[in-house]
Formats: sequence, structure tokens, C-alpha cells
Amino acid sequence: MSAITTDTVELGLQITDETCCVPASGDKVLQFAEAELLAARFKALSDPNRLRILSIVSSSEELETCVCDLSEPLGLKQPTVSHHLKILVDAGILHREKRGVWAYFSVVPGALESLASSLLPKN
Amino acid sequence: MSAITTDTVELGLQITDETCCVPASGDKVLQFAEAELLAARFKALSDPNRLRILSIVSSSEELETCVCDLSEPLGLKQPTVSHHLKILVDAGILHREKRGVWAYFSVVPGALESLASSLLPKN
Repeated sequence: MSAITTDTVELGLQITDETCCVPASGDKVLQFAEAELLAARFKALSDPNRLRILSIVSSSEELETCVCDLSEPLGLKQPTVSHHLKILVDAGILHREKRGVWAYFSVVPGALESLASSLLPKN
Repeated sequence: MSAITTDTVELGLQITDETCCVPASGDKVLQFAEAELLAARFKALSDPNRLRILSIVSSSEELETCVCDLSEPLGLKQPTVSHHLKILVDAGILHREKRGVWAYFSVVPGALESLASSLLPKN
């Protein structure tokens, strides 16, 4: 299980035998508030540049990436990079730490695992 | 592995030892075309009502759900449901089959597993 579990929500891809062959009813549906939480995180992932940023930050052996090291590999200007980073931080996917003149970004532990598990059947 | 592999892309959450401690460079970054594919699918999941539709369709014991059974549990009008269903179909997440007067929807085999695996470290 991921380190962050308090706001983990799941689509509920599996149901029990008791519900077999009964048309979908209100209580089988993902609740709207939970769906809103999940949707906001998927929205943060719905931009190719943000996914590219995440591919860099999540593959860093040092577990964090300086904002100063992102512009060049992405081919983006600093303000654009900062805009995307803010969205990923606001969505709870990246963590930001300011040290000296630079900010360093790391993946929030469990954030990606939590999102992935929301897409998969419960075991 | 999922049934659908041809367009599976991954964020590349792990890198090899050779790349340790080297600042991110262009060839470590998820390529833009792959990122665009993934982003389009996450965008389809970035709406709470679409996630609620998916929670119903993916939990159906009959592996498919009639469009006629979605409006009531979601509390949405038919055109709104159809709008969201089209987006999920266009994103390759749901499959649509017309039989008689109704359309039936099922999750494309492997689609959710493929998206989930893109978020997780490669093993």
C-alpha cells in the first residue's frame, strides 16, 4: 500500500457476487466528491509537458530535481516550466522544497501508486 | 501484460545506474509524441462524471452496460451521458457496440491496466 492512504479513492472496479446482474444503482457508483478528487489529479496529468516533467523528476536517482535542470531537456522557458510544476504540486503529485535560490521537486511518496491503484480492480 | 500493448507508453520512472547523478538530459525525457498519447487518455479521466461512468461500466458483472442504465444512477440527462461516453470511447478506454436500439459499453481490455502501469516504476 502506498504511504499516502488518507485520500486514496478507487473506482471500485470489482463488485461482489451479490450484485451480479443487477443494473447499476446509485450506491454502486463512485461518489461525486471522491470522483472530483481523482479527476483533479488526472487533470494534472492531462498535459504532455507535465508528463515529461514527471518523467524527469520521477526518474531522478537523487529523488529530487532542481527547477534549474528542467528547462533545457524539455525545451521550455522557465515560466512555462514553473507554471506546470505548480499544477503538479497543487494536485499533490509533486513536493516543492526551496533551498537557497532554487526550488527542488520530488514525487510525493505514494501519489503515483495511489492513482494507479484507483484504475485497477481491487484485490 | 495487457491485451493492448502497441501504444503502451511509460513515464520511465526508473533509470539505470549509468545515469546516476547526471542532470536530466533530453534523451531521458518521455518523448513528446508518447506524452501526448498518454495525456489524451488522462484528459478523458479528468472529469468526475466520466470517472463515475467508468466505475459503473468497469464493475458490471456482465462486462458491459447499456447506455439506458446510466442516466438514473448518475443523475444525468441522456445527452450528457452520451457526451461523456463518446470522450471515453475516443480515448480508447471504452468500447461501444450498438445492438438494436441501444448501445452497450465495455472497458477496452487492458486499457486501464496500461494507463496504471505508465504511472508505476518499470520492473
